[in-house]
Amino acid sequence: MKSRKWTTIESSRVYSTRIFDLMRHHREHPHRGKHHFFVLSAPNWVNIIPLTPSQEVVMVHQFRHGIEDSTLEVPGGMVDPGEEPIVAARREMIEESGFDSDDIVEIGKVHPNPAIQGNYCFSFVARNVRLIGKPDQSDGAEETEVVTVPLADIRKMIATGEITHALTITGFSFLQFYNSALF
Amino acid sequence: MKSRKWTTIESSRVYSTRIFDLMRHHREHPHRGKHHFFVLSAPNWVNIIPLTPSQEVVMVHQFRHGIEDSTLEVPGGMVDPGEEPIVAARREMIEESGFDSDDIVEIGKVHPNPAIQGNYCFSFVARNVRLIGKPDQSDGAEETEVVTVPLADIRKMIATGEITHALTITGFSFLQFYNSALF
Repeated sequence: MKSRKWTTIESSRVYSTRIFDLMRHHREHPHRGKHHFFVLSAPNWVNIIPLTPSQEVVMVHQFRHGIEDSTLEVPGGMVDPGEEPIVAARREMIEESGFDSDDIVEIGKVHPNPAIQGNYCFSFVARNVRLIGKPDQSDGAEETEVVTVPLADIRKMIATGEITHALTITGFSFLQFYNSALF
Repeated sequence: MKSRKWTTIESSRVYSTRIFDLMRHHREHPHRGKHHFFVLSAPNWVNIIPLTPSQEVVMVHQFRHGIEDSTLEVPGGMVDPGEEPIVAARREMIEESGFDSDDIVEIGKVHPNPAIQGNYCFSFVARNVRLIGKPDQSDGAEETEVVTVPLADIRKMIATGEITHALTITGFSFLQFYNSALF
């Protein structure tokens, strides 16, 4: 890009929720004038692909209020303040699936939506996961069910639309295609 | 999923922007009680991979206010009311890149973020694109630059983090991996 000449005149938090704040930025460009831009301020996100020794992926059926339906996803969530992404990923895996592993590797990161969000979503793979307990169902608002899916079936499940969550798909794409040489 | 028992007690639009409305849904579950859920109400989105006869991808460097930096993306945007996604994709390609083609095929669709959005992003490939004019720079708030990139380089550019936009990556993943057998 030749120019990054937007300057911020004023920023204000116009609405707060427990997972993001809605920010309004009033910005000016020497050739493009003044405009308002709306941005979701959110912590970084993580997701993690738990792989069993027999190459099964531990996934979560979860009711999602955006689409008012359930999705098939890998475990994931928000990075807590001061937390390393890899620590957040392991925590979410244990909480959501009951599986754990100490063999966790970052496989890629994306901007979920750079137009309206500044955060990253980091993706990890956890190898040789083992069941260590029950999923934590203490978050009363979450409704989940753990399932295992052969890794060999994932490609077809994405192609046919059985898996639709963009960030679950970018995670699998790093694992199986873009960074597959690493594994 | 065994149960989808959330009922909506009340919904209200708590903030409106030109690209989404922020909705607050008050919902109740027989076993999980009452909770507020926040959802971005937005139209469906599209993106499109314009391929030249020599297998170059026409891409757009664009300043993005969410990350306050520029990204390298394929053309895309919002589907207008009553518009077919394929028509929106072609319109966005012409507007943002100046290239056109009548050989356009859908390659996949994703939920950009099913937790907080209900919409889909549809991905298309346009083959044998040709330059028909200049990009439309009439939207004063957008700052873009068109570049061409060999399709053969895309995989490495995603692996190395040169391309970070999750929805551009899901589009390329459908083209090069999940639905590559179609092309």
